[in-house]
Amino acid sequence: MTITVQLDTPVLLRNEEAAREIRALCQENGIFLVNIMSSPGAGKTTLLEATLRLIRDRLPVAVIEGDLVTTRDADRIAALGVPAVQLNTNGACHLDARMVLQALGKLDLAALNMVIVENVGNLVCPAEFDLGENFRVVVLSTTEGNDKVSKYPLIFRTSGLLVLNKIDLLPYTNFSVPDLVEDATLVNPNLKILQVSARRGDGIEAWAEYLVTLVTGK
Amino acid sequence: MTITVQLDTPVLLRNEEAAREIRALCQENGIFLVNIMSSPGAGKTTLLEATLRLIRDRLPVAVIEGDLVTTRDADRIAALGVPAVQLNTNGACHLDARMVLQALGKLDLAALNMVIVENVGNLVCPAEFDLGENFRVVVLSTTEGNDKVSKYPLIFRTSGLLVLNKIDLLPYTNFSVPDLVEDATLVNPNLKILQVSARRGDGIEAWAEYLVTLVTGK
Repeated sequence: MTITVQLDTPVLLRNEEAAREIRALCQENGIFLVNIMSSPGAGKTTLLEATLRLIRDRLPVAVIEGDLVTTRDADRIAALGVPAVQLNTNGACHLDARMVLQALGKLDLAALNMVIVENVGNLVCPAEFDLGENFRVVVLSTTEGNDKVSKYPLIFRTSGLLVLNKIDLLPYTNFSVPDLVEDATLVNPNLKILQVSARRGDGIEAWAEYLVTLVTGK
Repeated sequence: MTITVQLDTPVLLRNEEAAREIRALCQENGIFLVNIMSSPGAGKTTLLEATLRLIRDRLPVAVIEGDLVTTRDADRIAALGVPAVQLNTNGACHLDARMVLQALGKLDLAALNMVIVENVGNLVCPAEFDLGENFRVVVLSTTEGNDKVSKYPLIFRTSGLLVLNKIDLLPYTNFSVPDLVEDATLVNPNLKILQVSARRGDGIEAWAEYLVTLVTGK
């Protein structure tokens, strides 16, 4: 038997005003804003590290790191010489637009072309919060199983790109890439899928090129 | 630089009343209530399937499955002949006590000794919601990386047992069990850790015995 619970939405409406401010601010400063989301441990920060090594000299980029506590992720990004702001949500399970607006205020926006937001590790709430981003990326890892698209459809429906990470672990799991493609296409026919191993390096150049093209249009 | 955002808590206070009702209901019916939490894809349902095969004939048990949408998990549990109630949160990222109270109303409580709640896949919000449970279990998988205890401390601090799943994948990751034990002990010195592979079967008997002993006291 199934029980369905209704969800309150006023907080989402309050979020929209800040998202509009972000969009205006980014347009004014020529900034392309990317929102990267995933489960905890899907490998977002490792992916970003590998990506920034390839693009940091081609494109002025900064990163906003969302976490409940710790500055571990921002420290990892700053170690690459890329400007990084750590947002600590102090327990909240997602970033909202007001937090991101605050973080953007700490960056030298005029000097940047791209800001990447690494959201809190969570497949649910981040998907509901418009951060005023130009593009959403969802990262899924092969070790998380094939049912994630059906069980957490909103995040896949609202993203433009799915990065399938940890393909180096494919041989040791029962994950099926064809099944993923089938499920993803049902939920979002426009979702592009790139396969990578952030740890081993597979597919990282293609994904970095994809990002650069998004921002520069060439 | 780091920005800290304050968290609202009124919803947590409203949750407490339902949690108290659950505690009274479970005590009255001699039910031990277990709340299992993890990231999406850590393997909670696969772990439950393996566990229920071992304990379903020894202990009258039922399962409450929390998901945003789909009845996939409850269907998997029901296929084992174990009573299962699917709670669909319709987008919400955690179960709260009112939802669980509603689900308990669908079960024949007088005939049960244990109810296992499988929470929504999320390392953040579920930890904040008291479900009136007797015991909390957090499942972490070796593919999620070593930083999860530091980054999501509340869920590890409020659990009595950490089940480390997917130890069959240890050789293919950079996960360190000694580092996990060290981090977990810092956050929660009383946290017991059991290592399992729900898919391959390692450690499942020990964990099933642990659960049975929790419930029966012997």
